[in-house]
Amino acid sequence: MILTVTLNAALDITYRVPRLRPHTTHRVAEVVERPGGKGLNVARVLAALGHDTVVTGFAGGPTGGALRAQLAALGAAGTLRGRITDALLPIAGATRRTVGVVDAHTGDTTQLNEPGPPVTSAEWSDFTESYGRLLREAAAVALCGSLPPGVPVGMYAQLVRDARSAGVPVLLDTSGEPLRRGIAARPDIVKPNADELAGLTGSTEPVRAARDARRRGARAVAASLGADGMLAVTADTAWRATPPRRLAGNPTGAGDSAVAGLLSGLVEGLSWPHRLARAVALAAATVRAPAAGEFDRATYEEALPHIRITEHPAVA
Amino acid sequence: MILTVTLNAALDITYRVPRLRPHTTHRVAEVVERPGGKGLNVARVLAALGHDTVVTGFAGGPTGGALRAQLAALGAAGTLRGRITDALLPIAGATRRTVGVVDAHTGDTTQLNEPGPPVTSAEWSDFTESYGRLLREAAAVALCGSLPPGVPVGMYAQLVRDARSAGVPVLLDTSGEPLRRGIAARPDIVKPNADELAGLTGSTEPVRAARDARRRGARAVAASLGADGMLAVTADTAWRATPPRRLAGNPTGAGDSAVAGLLSGLVEGLSWPHRLARAVALAAATVRAPAAGEFDRATYEEALPHIRITEHPAVA
Repeated sequence: MILTVTLNAALDITYRVPRLRPHTTHRVAEVVERPGGKGLNVARVLAALGHDTVVTGFAGGPTGGALRAQLAALGAAGTLRGRITDALLPIAGATRRTVGVVDAHTGDTTQLNEPGPPVTSAEWSDFTESYGRLLREAAAVALCGSLPPGVPVGMYAQLVRDARSAGVPVLLDTSGEPLRRGIAARPDIVKPNADELAGLTGSTEPVRAARDARRRGARAVAASLGADGMLAVTADTAWRATPPRRLAGNPTGAGDSAVAGLLSGLVEGLSWPHRLARAVALAAATVRAPAAGEFDRATYEEALPHIRITEHPAVA
Repeated sequence: MILTVTLNAALDITYRVPRLRPHTTHRVAEVVERPGGKGLNVARVLAALGHDTVVTGFAGGPTGGALRAQLAALGAAGTLRGRITDALLPIAGATRRTVGVVDAHTGDTTQLNEPGPPVTSAEWSDFTESYGRLLREAAAVALCGSLPPGVPVGMYAQLVRDARSAGVPVLLDTSGEPLRRGIAARPDIVKPNADELAGLTGSTEPVRAARDARRRGARAVAASLGADGMLAVTADTAWRATPPRRLAGNPTGAGDSAVAGLLSGLVEGLSWPHRLARAVALAAATVRAPAAGEFDRATYEEALPHIRITEHPAVA
């Protein structure tokens, strides 16, 4: 199985309103709730691709209960090719909500993200134990998203080291100080976006910044460049993967789909060009999906053979 | 005890953001959750005034669970002079949320109200039975707010008739068709605001509209006129109650505090002028309170002797 870690899971709520008018009252026409947080999004795409996936992290309170019930319903619906197993750890604090308000007139989304629940030292120490056990069965692990309050900023560095000791390939997708600390622990892949890469390295030139990120400890850097696709820098080579054309739509979750593409490709033994093609096609299919964070299988299958891969040897 | 009915209860969530910028992402600095829906607000003020209060209506799902837990915590906190007893009926649907986004820069609130959960005929039939039992112990009853989907539009008319049969004075505070139907069942008091009164009668002149509302079946009409105070029209007289000065603040819940003032005054045997003075002073103290829907006791006690009551005999 593939393990995904979401320390700051969320109950994602989407409201559709005819038009968002600040400082007025709106009757919400449509409410959609789904399990959220980067690692849970990655797991959903992995399972859709046919990989059995275990999700871990923290969940608590009535919102955590709702999230777990929805995760169970997702598995029971029978639309996923792989299984999703819930290994989230219960905590005393309540799982945060994110509220996305979609303006039906403009199509734009206004996002309101609650802070995460406080996590006690006893809770995160329980988590590291449980994580160690889960690693024994894992073919790969993805560490995704922000840290909730109370979790030490070096937590991802520790989880990277544990994965490496267990011989499990590890992908890290976070930002800020947790990324800076985590990268020094030598993860197999980091997947920053252009902003996160610039924040880490100080360089806005992606190839230069990715090379810098490798020097800081990442064995490979796969940077998502939005509509421009992805850039990967490994020990030997650099690749650019470019979608056939710019796609209009909702980019929410595109980065998480790319992580699922990279990680499934790694587990299946695909070469870097094939991993990147899958990641970029999945990201494009997510942008085109009607619901945020889902992916459109037809767009994926259609885009996959048309992703352009170019190689720049010795750039690293 | 006083009974309050909230068929469309809500979990009220308030987000504070430095500034609301549509179509961007916000980190919410502060999250406050409280039991919401008009009848629950009325109950909180009644209990603060020292009246034992029973709340009924519907609650379901994780949001309903959160609402009930907060209601229990409110009672346990020991800050209320009267007791609040939870007699909400469990339903299969999930209690709705309302999200208020306070822009700290302007002080304005953007409100997003979810639709209520569907209520099945078995559920509302269980409710009417339970309501009949609760009426036996009630000194007065308030029927408050909108109807969730699935509840017949004539539900309030039925609940008014049941209260009258049981000899329990009944106040109705709703709008639209449920108000139109409910008023015909001859409630003791209706408490529309100026807009609701105009919607019901077609007249924007409050005294004329209130007289019309009486003719439709209400024994007394107490209309809240925002910063202008209240107007009451009974069989014999009309009264105006005016606060000493216009107060700046958040008007959320001011109407519910006025209902608590009217109903507690009725149960205590106060005359109409004294009921109105209490209602207007409570509404003013709610506008001045730091948290939406709370009331500021010092403002209440200070305002009470300064509410100006004028009588217009024979106007009815």
